Amino acid sequence: MSFSVTILGSASAKPTAGRHPSAQVVDVHEQYYLVDAGEGVQQQMFRYGINPLKLRAVFISHLHGDHVFGLFPLLSTLGLYGRRTPLRIFAPAPFGEILDCHLRYFDSELPYSVEWTPVDTTAHALLFENRTLEVWSIPLRHRVPTAGYLFREKEPPLNVDKFKIARYALSIAQITAAKRGEDITLDTGEVLPNGELTYTPYRARSYAYLSDTNFSAKAAGLCRGVDLMYHEATYAAAEQRSARERGHSTTRDAAKAARQAEAGRLIIGHYSSRYKDEQVLVAEARELFPDTCAAEEGKTFTIEKRR
Amino acid sequence: MSFSVTILGSASAKPTAGRHPSAQVVDVHEQYYLVDAGEGVQQQMFRYGINPLKLRAVFISHLHGDHVFGLFPLLSTLGLYGRRTPLRIFAPAPFGEILDCHLRYFDSELPYSVEWTPVDTTAHALLFENRTLEVWSIPLRHRVPTAGYLFREKEPPLNVDKFKIARYALSIAQITAAKRGEDITLDTGEVLPNGELTYTPYRARSYAYLSDTNFSAKAAGLCRGVDLMYHEATYAAAEQRSARERGHSTTRDAAKAARQAEAGRLIIGHYSSRYKDEQVLVAEARELFPDTCAAEEGKTFTIEKRR
Repeated sequence: MSFSVTILGSASAKPTAGRHPSAQVVDVHEQYYLVDAGEGVQQQMFRYGINPLKLRAVFISHLHGDHVFGLFPLLSTLGLYGRRTPLRIFAPAPFGEILDCHLRYFDSELPYSVEWTPVDTTAHALLFENRTLEVWSIPLRHRVPTAGYLFREKEPPLNVDKFKIARYALSIAQITAAKRGEDITLDTGEVLPNGELTYTPYRARSYAYLSDTNFSAKAAGLCRGVDLMYHEATYAAAEQRSARERGHSTTRDAAKAARQAEAGRLIIGHYSSRYKDEQVLVAEARELFPDTCAAEEGKTFTIEKRR
Repeated sequence: MSFSVTILGSASAKPTAGRHPSAQVVDVHEQYYLVDAGEGVQQQMFRYGINPLKLRAVFISHLHGDHVFGLFPLLSTLGLYGRRTPLRIFAPAPFGEILDCHLRYFDSELPYSVEWTPVDTTAHALLFENRTLEVWSIPLRHRVPTAGYLFREKEPPLNVDKFKIARYALSIAQITAAKRGEDITLDTGEVLPNGELTYTPYRARSYAYLSDTNFSAKAAGLCRGVDLMYHEATYAAAEQRSARERGHSTTRDAAKAARQAEAGRLIIGHYSSRYKDEQVLVAEARELFPDTCAAEEGKTFTIEKRR
């Protein structure tokens, strides 16, 4: 029942010897989702022990090269490894055309299918859903159409209090009904409201990925109560003008978004290559939002279960 | 007057945590040429202190992703760094179509021009020439059209023996004429053959890049006398059948090519991911060609000047 985020890249568009461009893997109940795919992402996955064959889906925020150039080599490698499972890719248009070019020239005979779903970057919409997870788009404010992604764990199934099971001598059928959220009528005719029998084992967890973007109160609002937020902080607070002009955020913008969303924790990343030491940026963000961490490559941020 | 090769990638198509796909930089007289451009090549250049803005031209052997996926992020980064100098790219068709796709979707406003020259992979032809260097194509035998590249330093200008200058009291005009290779007529009417006055300061140097390919006696013959040869050795000698079928070489194929070419030294690389320790492969090649080295990433092989 894991829920974690592993950072694979922390650089902005100009990579450095030590930092890779944007990429992360979100692990929800041992199912893996790639969020952005900067150059070198497959090698970063190998380096940090994440099997790329286990990827269920890929979410691309926007079509700038530093968020997508690593995807094509990854698609090829998955083919070399004989993947059969279709791979879903969520990305803004015209990703389909770019994918067609790639497949035509480099991967015309992949052993698996790549299924692209266009993302409307102006809408907050449910894009992906399975038994345990929903992924929603978050409109962002960048120079090109860009979406953030909100990963929401579904409410876990209700647990039935074992003391109540014993006390009322509940049958299997009654326990199953209680797990479904139903009230239970005892043989005596007494009705036990579901709330007296069951409890939520842990609160559903959530993660928001917001990159690249100017500060957006709307985006922050859509992430209200999120446990963990990644927000780009390309620039230090003093570079607010550059940030505005380039469709990026400062450390203070990131902290403001986390505070406004009442996030549990904040990760900042997508650092401009001018900042050799990201701790300077973290210190700035912490002035406004104390629970801020650096997007350190290889680091896994786990969201623990809470009642 | 440098002449060296720096290895940036040593892996074959499946990259590993420790090895990058094919890429090298050839430095001829402080001018830099990129040979193949596997994923991560720009970061490898940063890592090993090679300024990508100094690249004069790129030579792509063939259009398999592990030899070309790093080129597109590099093109973008050169744009971000404000390159103005045109960049020449030599690659087999249909590279131009692939380049068009890249430029259309990712780099429609590069500040420099990218000039593609198609390489006829069936011909041994002069592709590139400047004051100090010629680059020739070498037809190879792979699953898709593939060319190797032969870097030939031009003969350095003649030096005039300073003892002869003093002995015959040669004038500036006579020295200049001697440097051009002319015979010199003294005031006495005596004619000094050019060979008595001048000497070649060092022998022109050469480097051959042969990847990916089956063993080719013809390719080896075209590299006769080469100072340094890179030859792929994807497989150990025992895997000769896999090598043949996949259009690749074994360690023995590489050594045979070097021996047949009477090469000075051999570098082997493009190792299959199954070989964790490349020294096993090097040892095999050395049985046939003792002066064999591993393509170790970050290592620079310098061809020293010799008389």
